[in-house]
Formats: sequence, structure tokens, C-alpha cells
Amino acid sequence: MAATISIGLAGLGNVGAGVYKNLERNGDLLAERTGHRFEVVRVAVRDLGKARDVEVPAARLTTDWRDLVADPAIQVIVELIGGVTEAHELVKSALEAGKIVITGNKALLAEHGHELIALAEKMDVPLYFEAAVAGGIPIIKSVREALVGNHILAIYGIINGTSNFILTQMARRGIDYRTALAEAQARGYAEADPALDVNGWDAAHKAIILAWLSYGLWVRPNEIVVDGIENVSAADIRLAATLGYTIKLLGVVRLHEDRRIEVRVQPTLIPSSHILASVNDVFNAVVVHGDIVGETLFYGSGAGQNATSSAVIADLADAAHNLAKNPGCQGFLPSGYYGQAVTVDETVSPYYIRLRVEDRPGVIAQVTSVIARHDIGLSSLVQPKVEGGGPADLMLMMHAAPFGRMRAALGELEKLSCVTEKPILMRVENFA
Amino acid sequence: MAATISIGLAGLGNVGAGVYKNLERNGDLLAERTGHRFEVVRVAVRDLGKARDVEVPAARLTTDWRDLVADPAIQVIVELIGGVTEAHELVKSALEAGKIVITGNKALLAEHGHELIALAEKMDVPLYFEAAVAGGIPIIKSVREALVGNHILAIYGIINGTSNFILTQMARRGIDYRTALAEAQARGYAEADPALDVNGWDAAHKAIILAWLSYGLWVRPNEIVVDGIENVSAADIRLAATLGYTIKLLGVVRLHEDRRIEVRVQPTLIPSSHILASVNDVFNAVVVHGDIVGETLFYGSGAGQNATSSAVIADLADAAHNLAKNPGCQGFLPSGYYGQAVTVDETVSPYYIRLRVEDRPGVIAQVTSVIARHDIGLSSLVQPKVEGGGPADLMLMMHAAPFGRMRAALGELEKLSCVTEKPILMRVENFA
Repeated sequence: MAATISIGLAGLGNVGAGVYKNLERNGDLLAERTGHRFEVVRVAVRDLGKARDVEVPAARLTTDWRDLVADPAIQVIVELIGGVTEAHELVKSALEAGKIVITGNKALLAEHGHELIALAEKMDVPLYFEAAVAGGIPIIKSVREALVGNHILAIYGIINGTSNFILTQMARRGIDYRTALAEAQARGYAEADPALDVNGWDAAHKAIILAWLSYGLWVRPNEIVVDGIENVSAADIRLAATLGYTIKLLGVVRLHEDRRIEVRVQPTLIPSSHILASVNDVFNAVVVHGDIVGETLFYGSGAGQNATSSAVIADLADAAHNLAKNPGCQGFLPSGYYGQAVTVDETVSPYYIRLRVEDRPGVIAQVTSVIARHDIGLSSLVQPKVEGGGPADLMLMMHAAPFGRMRAALGELEKLSCVTEKPILMRVENFA
Repeated sequence: MAATISIGLAGLGNVGAGVYKNLERNGDLLAERTGHRFEVVRVAVRDLGKARDVEVPAARLTTDWRDLVADPAIQVIVELIGGVTEAHELVKSALEAGKIVITGNKALLAEHGHELIALAEKMDVPLYFEAAVAGGIPIIKSVREALVGNHILAIYGIINGTSNFILTQMARRGIDYRTALAEAQARGYAEADPALDVNGWDAAHKAIILAWLSYGLWVRPNEIVVDGIENVSAADIRLAATLGYTIKLLGVVRLHEDRRIEVRVQPTLIPSSHILASVNDVFNAVVVHGDIVGETLFYGSGAGQNATSSAVIADLADAAHNLAKNPGCQGFLPSGYYGQAVTVDETVSPYYIRLRVEDRPGVIAQVTSVIARHDIGLSSLVQPKVEGGGPADLMLMMHAAPFGRMRAALGELEKLSCVTEKPILMRVENFA
């Protein structure tokens, strides 16, 4: 009874191997639930001789992904080669050949999503990408289908597991960034070159995709603010905790009243009582505020072989429905309903500042008068007691203000003679 | 371009009014996203003259839901009248008439799901029920579609908002059950007769549905253990907190190695560090463990006019795809793949016991020897210092043991002369 779906798998790295393995492992379950057998008939790899943790019959392997696109028997192509240039060519060719494409490539979509989605629409084939955002968490399906009746007001996401692991360890054990990063690398949670994870860009690619899905606007990478966690210190984590806040690398996608869109990724203070503050270690979570449903949260493993392959397999099941002449099973495609991106200087939030200052009379007056001159409200100021009269840390919590104004004030603070180091500035998100 | 979907709405109470209102409010968004207009063409109400917070043209109102079923123009019937007997008749008639049915009625499904799902399959029309479990949280779609490639290993849910609000207030403010219940009633979170919420049966109906969805087995209500929160005391909440635990009303659905299914709803101690312990107030959350995806969690408003209507509207969008000749968009229907329900005596967990005992020598020896005789391991024992030598609270944490053995031990403990009140027993869930 079960019709076979023939799959071409491009890439047999960590996630690709997971898809191959789990389609075999749970093949009976999938047949029972979907009425289809999913068979990977061809696999494109870079190196035929490489040792792998899955056994693929040699006859199915090729070193040229074009063999997958050219094979008329292949109905669905799963792109898991990573990178942008070659993946772009692959996905384009596959869509042009009228094949359904499933990709987990967030960088590809952030850069070429506009073109690829248009191409898929023109060719009338679906392009699925659940695995591209937050691994095993079904955030794409949830926004596209389950929340279809909602205007999305805002999305807040902890969407980089490596950064979250590092920040969690720093908070729990009081260790510094370098030590926590080394531990993440030792455990395999961070690459030898961890740049894309810790500099915020992996999360930014996901935020760009979520912003498009919510608002139909592909924000350009150069239009958004992206800060990583490299400069978060154990001192800031400790001070934030005394105020009831936890520091997380937070992706924010938010609709403004003038229908423009705010997209950014930054280390952010969030209230420790908020459920997002309980998202620890390598876990990811995405909060979605819909105008009808209110606050929802989706939590799970944001990376890893098995979790990510779960998302690819869900896309395969939807692809199978589609092949059985059931188009429409992928949820809505957003139209260009909303305006443009908000510039960073216009974005408004409360702020946390830590200043290293000389411990002498008049310092607080100097600092606070700069802030007042820029019309920024101060909600609290703490100067922990210093032993022995050395330089002191001054911690300030500011009321909400446009970032442009905050930036100007910060520039002046930095130039004060009493300020001895570059000030630390972080945003505060109260989810109000 | 947009094809109109004609809806018959049975019930214009809290949720029914929300569906009507929000379909109007976000009608343009839905048309843009789905290509359909959703029009409620007929509404069945009990009392035509009742004042409501939505304005429905009088010509659309009827007091007989049979008018909806008999109307050939109506394509989808939304059942939101509540109760079981009449709702059963309504859903049956609508399916027999070949109409798509959407229901938010958990009691109806827990009691008659077996028959109604079979009828829907026989008539080849879908029966949607996202709103029946956890309000605005898309847990049904997530299990049926997003996690389709996973064997479900276990589900843990905080799935009654009223109980969760009461327990949260008790924990935060140290107040007792009666005071917290009165506050829930004053805020409109609990009915004047709160029985179904606080006695655990509302949560149990949802657990039964989730068990069926995961395992294809309709567990009978009389086969499962259901305890409410009426006997949870401020003292237990406080004592549990000192041990690092939070007390939640937890629905548990779990697969045993012999393929039998455990389903129960009970106040349960969970580690305060687990994300479920941060689910507070009226919020709901469902943890799903899949064999591939690992641990996932879905969080949001489990009740309320708007959140629940968001779920009904998502079902309407899926129904529209179905009407456009795209069957298969509702995800899988489980088959009877799994065996039978596990009896409560066989269920295994760690336990918390609080005993009110006389403060005299030999009491601890008496108590612990009963426990040892039943071959139950004691993991810790705390006796908070008593002022003035009155009766004392003895708190015991037990290692995992079958409930049957624990029950026998508890019966003996109760009969000890040194035990002055009925012992308090609660399960502990460590999510291991």
C-alpha cells in the first residue's frame, strides 16, 4: 500500500547522516503514520572514501550533486551540504528541475531566500526549511500553520545553543568567557573556529528567516544589529543577577506601530522570573506573541544530529502529502505586507551600563549629568563597595530610550576622565 | 480570488464568541495567507435573547443545532457547546452528514473519541480538535505533524490553568488552598463550581487524548489515576521547596518497555531547575519526549476566549485546505499499535511522604522499618525542629518503587500509633 518517496540527499555530514539513519530506524512508524516509505536513493558526498557512522551502499554514493538533480526518479532533494555558494546553485537547480527541496541552511536562506522562495513559487514546488531554524523545534510549522490566524507582534528567541551553553556555564559556575568556550569546544558544542556561533550571526540568520515568515520582508543582513557574546563578562552576569536579571543572547523580531520591522541579536538582560531565563545549556527556545493567542513558547534541542533530522523528516512527510496531490500542506507564504526595517538608532529598550570609574568624589554627579543631558531616565544605580580604594564598577539601569540617544550618551561617558575603561552596554528586555 | 468557507458555529459562549470575533478581526490576514474567506453563516445558541459581547445578525441565529447540520451550504461545523450528551449527538450527526467537524470538547473526546474518530474515517471527513488540549498551544499539530518521525516516549503536561494558578499563588505567597481558590474565582480563572478543574479531571481528559494520539489507544477514564490539588497544603509546597522541588499538577503519559501505556494526573514534585517548574499562573505547558528529537516543550495560554479561538482558527485553515481537495493536511491518525493501559499499582516513581507524628523517641525507627519491610529505599528524611514538643512533621523522600508497594507501606504507616493524621503521599518526577 505504501507509496515510496525517492529522496536525493546532498551532504552526509552530521545532520545528513542523522536523516539517513533515522529514516531507516523509524521507517515502519513513518509508513504506518503517513502511508509512505521514504527511501534515500542517492547521496552526494564530497569524499567517497571518508569513514562515516552510517553505512550507505557504495552504488548510491556520488561526488556530484548534479547527479541527484538530473535523476528523474528523485522526487525530493534534501540539501544539507552547508555553505552558501554551492548550496545556492544546488537548490536553484533542483527547484528549476521541478523537484521539492528541503534545506536546513539558514545562511543560504538569509542571503538568497528572496530569490529561492520566488523561484519555488514560480515553479509551483514547495521549498521546506523547518531544520533551518532552531533544529528540532517546530517553529516554522507553528508560525505558518498553528498561528495562521494571528498577526505576529513579536518573536524573542534563544536560537544559538553554543552561546546559550557558554552563558549558562558562566552564570552557574562564575567562570569567564574563555574558560566556558573551551569547555563547549571540549564537549563538541562549539567548533574549533566558533566565530559564527559566538558572534551572533548564526542566530541572526535564523532571526532574518523568522522576520520574513512573520512579515513577508527579507531584511538584509547589513540592516540589522548583531552582537555576539564575546564581551559578556562574569562580572556582568553576576551584577545582573543581583538585580533579578539573566543575560541571554536574544534574537528579537518586532513589529512597530508604523508597520516597520525591528530585527536584532544581542546579549540582553531578561527577568530571571521569565520562562526564557530557564532555558539553559544547549537548549533553544522561541517565544512568539500573537495578537490572538498571546504569549507562546517553543522549546527543544536547537542543534544536533538527531533533533535536526526530526525536523527534516517532518518536512519529508509534508512533501509526501504534496506529492500525493495535496498542495497547501506547507502553511502560508507571507506576502510583502509590511514596510521596511527599523534602524538600530530608532530601536527602543531599557539598558544596563557598567562603568569602570575612579573612586573619587564627584564621579556619580559627572556620570548622571551626561545621562540626564541626553534625556535618558535612570531607574537605578549601584556602586558595589570597593576594598582598598582602587577603580570601582558603577552599574546603571536606564529606562527605555532610543538607541541613538543612548549611543550618544555612551560616547560622552567614554570620554569622561573618571571613566577608565570602555563602558559595557547591554539591552534589557522586559517582554512588556 | 478568495473562496469562501461557510461555517456553522454551535455555541456562542466564551470560546464561540472568540472565534466569531477573531474571524472578523483577522479576516483579511486569513484571506491573504490561506486564499480563503471564513464566514460564519449560522450560529446555534441556547437562548436567542441573551446579551453577548459579539453582535451576530439575528437572521443567522438559531436555537437548534440541527439547522446547521441540515444546511447544505455549511461545509464545516464548529462544536463549542460543551457538555457530552448533546455535543455527542451533534458531532455524530455532522460527520454522518459528511461535514468537517472542529471541536474543542475534551470531555466528549475522552468519552466518545473512539467512536467519533472511527466515524470520521468511515465518512472520510476530518475531525479536528486542536482546541481540546491546552487551548492556544498547538500540541495536537505538533505531535501529529512536526514530530511525525518520532516514537513518543513520554508526555508530561501542566494542562489545567486553574490548578496551576492556585499552586503558583500558594507557592509564591505561602497562602492555603482555600484562599488561593477564592482568588482564582474572583479573577474569573475558576468557576463557581471549580470541581472539574481542581479535581484533575479536566487535565485527565486532555491526557487521554494525548495518549491516544501518541499510541493509538483510547484509555478508559476508569483505568487511570486522577488526583486533584484539593489536598495540597502550603506546608508541602514549602517543604518540597527546601528540597529543590516545585509541586505541579502533572499529567503523565508514558510508554513502558512492554508497550503498555501509563496515563495519570496527580500533584507531583518536579525539580525546581526543570523548565516545567517555571510554568506559572494560568499558563500551560506540555513536554514531549520523542525518540529522535529528544525533549521538547510547548507553552502558552491553555484557556481563554482568544487563545482557544486561535486554535480553532488554525483548524479552520486546515479544513479549508482539505475542502480544496487536499486531504492529508491534518497529520497522521494513530493506529492501534500499542497494547493496553498500565495499572496504577505497577507505575513506578520516587515518592514524597509527609507524616504528622508524635514527638517521642522511637518514632523514626518505627516509620523507617515499615518502609524497609516493603523493600522501598529511603533517599532522605527530614524532621524540621518543633517548638514546644507538639506533634511534628516528618518528611521522607523515597527512591523509585512500584505504587502498589508504596500503597501497602502507606497503609501500614497510617495505622502506626505514633502517626496522628492521614499521611500525605505525592509522586516525584525527575524526568530522567
